[in-house]
Amino acid sequence: MERLEEFQLIGRWLSGFDRGPGVMLGIGDDAAVLRPPLAHDLAMTVDSLVAGTHFPVTAPAADVGHRALAVNLSDLAAMGATPLWGLLALTLPSADEPWLAAFAAGFRALAERHAMALVGGNLSRGPLMATVQVTGTLPPGRWLGRDGGRAGDVLLVSGWPGEAAAGLELWEAAPSLARDHLVRRYLRPEPRVALGQAALGVASAAIDISDDLLADLGHLTAASGCGAEVELSRLPLSDALRAMRGPAQARHDALYGGDDYELLLTCPAAAHAVLAAAAEAQDVPLTRIGQLCEAPGVRLLGEGGEVLAPAGGFRHF
Amino acid sequence: MERLEEFQLIGRWLSGFDRGPGVMLGIGDDAAVLRPPLAHDLAMTVDSLVAGTHFPVTAPAADVGHRALAVNLSDLAAMGATPLWGLLALTLPSADEPWLAAFAAGFRALAERHAMALVGGNLSRGPLMATVQVTGTLPPGRWLGRDGGRAGDVLLVSGWPGEAAAGLELWEAAPSLARDHLVRRYLRPEPRVALGQAALGVASAAIDISDDLLADLGHLTAASGCGAEVELSRLPLSDALRAMRGPAQARHDALYGGDDYELLLTCPAAAHAVLAAAAEAQDVPLTRIGQLCEAPGVRLLGEGGEVLAPAGGFRHF
Repeated sequence: MERLEEFQLIGRWLSGFDRGPGVMLGIGDDAAVLRPPLAHDLAMTVDSLVAGTHFPVTAPAADVGHRALAVNLSDLAAMGATPLWGLLALTLPSADEPWLAAFAAGFRALAERHAMALVGGNLSRGPLMATVQVTGTLPPGRWLGRDGGRAGDVLLVSGWPGEAAAGLELWEAAPSLARDHLVRRYLRPEPRVALGQAALGVASAAIDISDDLLADLGHLTAASGCGAEVELSRLPLSDALRAMRGPAQARHDALYGGDDYELLLTCPAAAHAVLAAAAEAQDVPLTRIGQLCEAPGVRLLGEGGEVLAPAGGFRHF
Repeated sequence: MERLEEFQLIGRWLSGFDRGPGVMLGIGDDAAVLRPPLAHDLAMTVDSLVAGTHFPVTAPAADVGHRALAVNLSDLAAMGATPLWGLLALTLPSADEPWLAAFAAGFRALAERHAMALVGGNLSRGPLMATVQVTGTLPPGRWLGRDGGRAGDVLLVSGWPGEAAAGLELWEAAPSLARDHLVRRYLRPEPRVALGQAALGVASAAIDISDDLLADLGHLTAASGCGAEVELSRLPLSDALRAMRGPAQARHDALYGGDDYELLLTCPAAAHAVLAAAAEAQDVPLTRIGQLCEAPGVRLLGEGGEVLAPAGGFRHF
C-alpha cells in the first residue's frame, strides 16, 4: 500500500471525526496538536487486537472497529477517566475498502457516543491488526487504581460476566448467529465508562475484566496487598447464559470465561449504596459477589460459606 | 502468551523507564496517569513498523527498537515538538526474551537521549510488529505545519538523503555489513528533534521524509498551496553514497530512496541564516536544495536551471 493511498483511505473513511474539545490540529499533518483541559490530569493507554489472537479473522469489520476501541475505553473506565482523544494504527493485508468502511463505522459510532475525537491515524499493509491509543481526563491527582482495596471492602462486578465467552463459543460453532444476544456480548463489549466515572472517589479500587474475573481479581488483590472471597451463589448469571449453558457451566464461564470488559470494583461497605444507586441510574447491573480479606489469594466460597477451592485450583482452560 | 507472562515480560525489560516529568502513575495499572505541563499544547502521533513491510524480518532487534521509536520522534520533530511520553504496543510470534531484551535496549537508549518516559505498554502474541504512540509538548498555539510554505521561500533538507535507501540495498545483499555506515543510516535513523525545535517560529513549513524526498515535498507543497523547484546540483550527496552508487544513482536515491527521516524545511530567505546557524550548532547538515514557487507541482531543475522533468516523471520504483 503506497503512503498516498493510505492518506486517501484515511481521508475517506475517518475524516471529519477529528474535531472536538482541545483539538487544535487534527489528522493530516505529521502529528495532531491538542490542548489539554485546564487543571486536569490525563489517563493514557494502548491496546492491540490481533486477528486470530484477539478476535476471529472472520469477525465482521464493524464489530472489530467497535471492539478495538471498546477494549481501550474499558481501560479508561477502570481508571474513572473520561475519554477525550484517540489514535488508531491499523494494518490490513490489502486495501479492502468495504472492510475499512465497516471498521470505521463501528469505531466511529462508539467514539461518538463517548464524544471522543480520532486525532491521528496510521494505515499500512500488514497482518490484520488494530492498535488504539486513547487519552482521557481525570480530576487532578485522582484516579481509580488497582491498589486501593482493603480487607473488609465489598467486591462488586458490573454486567453479566460469562456471556461474552459463551457467545464466542456459540458463534464459532454457528457463524450464522452473529446477531444472537450472547454473540453480540462478545463482539460488542460495552465499556463501562459512566460507571467508572461515578465510582471515582467512591470505590477503593477498580480493574476491568479483560482476562477473566478471577485472574483480574487476582491482579487487584495483589496490587492492594490483600485477598478476596467470591461467593459463588452471588455470581450474576444471566438468563441467556443459564439457558445456553446450564447453571454449573454458566458459573464457570462467569469466573473464567474472559472477554467481558466489565468492571470489578471494591469499596467500603458504607459506600456500597452510592455505587449501587449510580449503577441503577445508568441501568447497569452491579452485583456484590464477595469481599476483600486479609489473607492473600482468591478463594471461592460455596452456599454454606465453605471454601470450595483456591481460585487457581479448578481452572481447566 | 498469557497476560500474566505479558506483565512479567514488560516488567522485566521495560520497567524503571516510566518515570519523568508529569508521570503520576506509570506502567502497571489499567492506564497511566499524566499531568500535562502548564500552558503547553501537546503533539501526538502513532506509527507502526511491520516486519516484512517496514523492516526486514532479520533486522537486529535493538535496531527495530530504535527505529520503532525514531520514526515517531521524527514526526514530533517535524512539528517542532519536544518528546515527553510514549506508549508501545508490541506483538511477537513467541515470547522470545532475548529478542525483547535487545528491542527494549534499543528503544530505551533512544528514549533516554530524548528524555522520553515510556508510560504504557502492551505485549501480546501476534505477527512481529511494533506500534508506538508518542506525545510531545509545544508552546501554546504554535507548531510547524505543512501548510505554511509560501512562494519564494527557500527549501532546505537536513542530513544526507539517499543514504538509508542505499544502506538497505547494501545490507539486503550482504547481511554481514550490518555495521556499515550506510546500513546504520537505514537501521538507525536519527530523528532531528533539536532541529525541529529550533525551526519552530522560524521555518514556514516542515515535514519529515518518511516516504521519500519528492513525495514528501509534494505533500508539503499541496498543503501549502504552492509548488517547488529542486535544483539537482544542490542535492547533498554524501561521499559514502557517491562512492557506493556513483553520482547519478546517488542523486536518484536522494530523491526517491525513502527511509531517511530527515526534515524538509521552508523559510523566507531572510530567515535562512537563522536555521543554518541552528543546524551548524547541532552539527547537522542543512542544505538549500531549491525554493517554493507559485506554480503547483514539484519540478527538477538541471545545472542551467532547465526543467528536467516534473517530479513524477521519472519515478521508476
